[in-house]
Amino acid sequence: MYSGTSKDMEMYVGEDSAVDPTEYFVIMPNQIGNGLSTSPHNTPPPYGQADFPRVRISDDVRAQHRLLTEEFGIKELQLVLGWSMGAQQTYEWALRYPEMVNRAAPIGGTARNPVISRLLLDALADAIKSDPNWDEGYYTDPSDVRRGLQRHARIWSLMGVSDALYREESWQEVGFSSLNDFMHAFWDEWFLPMDPNDLLCMAWKWQQADVSRITDGDLEAALDRIDAKTYVLPFAEDMFFTVESCEREAELISDSEFRPVPTPWGHFGMLGLDPSDKAFIEDAIQELLGEPV
Amino acid sequence: MYSGTSKDMEMYVGEDSAVDPTEYFVIMPNQIGNGLSTSPHNTPPPYGQADFPRVRISDDVRAQHRLLTEEFGIKELQLVLGWSMGAQQTYEWALRYPEMVNRAAPIGGTARNPVISRLLLDALADAIKSDPNWDEGYYTDPSDVRRGLQRHARIWSLMGVSDALYREESWQEVGFSSLNDFMHAFWDEWFLPMDPNDLLCMAWKWQQADVSRITDGDLEAALDRIDAKTYVLPFAEDMFFTVESCEREAELISDSEFRPVPTPWGHFGMLGLDPSDKAFIEDAIQELLGEPV
Repeated sequence: MYSGTSKDMEMYVGEDSAVDPTEYFVIMPNQIGNGLSTSPHNTPPPYGQADFPRVRISDDVRAQHRLLTEEFGIKELQLVLGWSMGAQQTYEWALRYPEMVNRAAPIGGTARNPVISRLLLDALADAIKSDPNWDEGYYTDPSDVRRGLQRHARIWSLMGVSDALYREESWQEVGFSSLNDFMHAFWDEWFLPMDPNDLLCMAWKWQQADVSRITDGDLEAALDRIDAKTYVLPFAEDMFFTVESCEREAELISDSEFRPVPTPWGHFGMLGLDPSDKAFIEDAIQELLGEPV
Repeated sequence: MYSGTSKDMEMYVGEDSAVDPTEYFVIMPNQIGNGLSTSPHNTPPPYGQADFPRVRISDDVRAQHRLLTEEFGIKELQLVLGWSMGAQQTYEWALRYPEMVNRAAPIGGTARNPVISRLLLDALADAIKSDPNWDEGYYTDPSDVRRGLQRHARIWSLMGVSDALYREESWQEVGFSSLNDFMHAFWDEWFLPMDPNDLLCMAWKWQQADVSRITDGDLEAALDRIDAKTYVLPFAEDMFFTVESCEREAELISDSEFRPVPTPWGHFGMLGLDPSDKAFIEDAIQELLGEPV
């Protein structure tokens, strides 16, 4: 069960990869608002664009739970995993349905959104809304908001990877010809094709993420509900889901292991642009799947 | 000789402080563009506002050198030090006039501006210019650009201190009543009173800083020119003048010591909001002043 941002997780599924679909029944739902699932940009009036309802991580997870139980009749999940907002959903899964989740691997994300991540999302949302064509979310075409989208992408460039990546010019190793090329062909290319309202839908959901909503704000009590064998996989140098923030939560989970991914790619280590990042994550997932539960 | 951003350095001068003015002749020039020295906002046409010339770190240092030699007749400096852009100026001093500088203490800054710092400055400048009243720098009143200034301040809030400061709510210890209070009364209060063109003047100067302009881009050769006993003082958790970036340069200086300041305040550790940060820096300065040269 890959929760959340599945597009980026497909590379981890395959006969020679972390999760072998000939051995496991693999489910990869998109998250609400991500542009592939139900989202502001593909929802007709009166709920499209800026009128799309606010959605929480728990809404995603409850919808996924209904899919699995009502449509597929599934009672047990060998593994729930996900990256970034998918990690937020993984935590929500593990403590909301502890009887179903045998193993969990939140990768590059936390159960409660850290303060610095909340502030980053404020800045990212503000960047989009700063576009003169934003029009309170009722723009005619997403590309009209490209200045806001680019401003948003460039703030991502500050915190999405590490100082070391820029210092060592590690972008060269994966084929970018210059820093300018990396700014355009990586950062702009990632974010400019997205719909501004979709991005803001996800930003709010991400920003508000907090599993302790289920325990009146008590994070310790919330994480104590997790029965799954859990591998917590932060990225070294991740600037908003930092190693330290992830470690604090790992310590509150009864059966957890803490395995930071060593990479200069920071939060974007999940993309496996450096093959050793992907190998590290795959090894961890395979080892976790081999753990008795 | 405190180079650069002197307003923030005054707390380090005093009979009970790092530099005792009854023992040393202390010179604290403001830097060009900082709003106190010659700056876009206080320069009349045809060179005011957006027409102010671009100024480099080396322009500051050469102007300071003329002040010291031509006005004061000074031939020898016991210590040159400065924070942030003042550290950039400190490096420039030490290698441009090695025969004059006995000791140097660059604090929270580098000799060549790191790439991530260049990108941060792009984002900060863009934030100011995003204001609908920016008018290519010919705004009527600085406060007309307050939305851009606030956007700029809030990007600072992401990288100016550390994840740990937000996680531990260390702002409480210095009197801020809430995160919201910290955002307004620290970040906005710091930047909103400034003039947008002054900020952009400094941003460009900071962004282009590179002592190796004097050696055709060879940083090793440039830093090798430094004869001064040098204490390199980065701030732990500084996100753009990182400990690692500062350490690489320290290794290229023949007579250097590397002393990271342990603090969650990141780049803003210089303010001494946590008294132990100020004490650490003062101890280092006093020890450096005691070194034989």
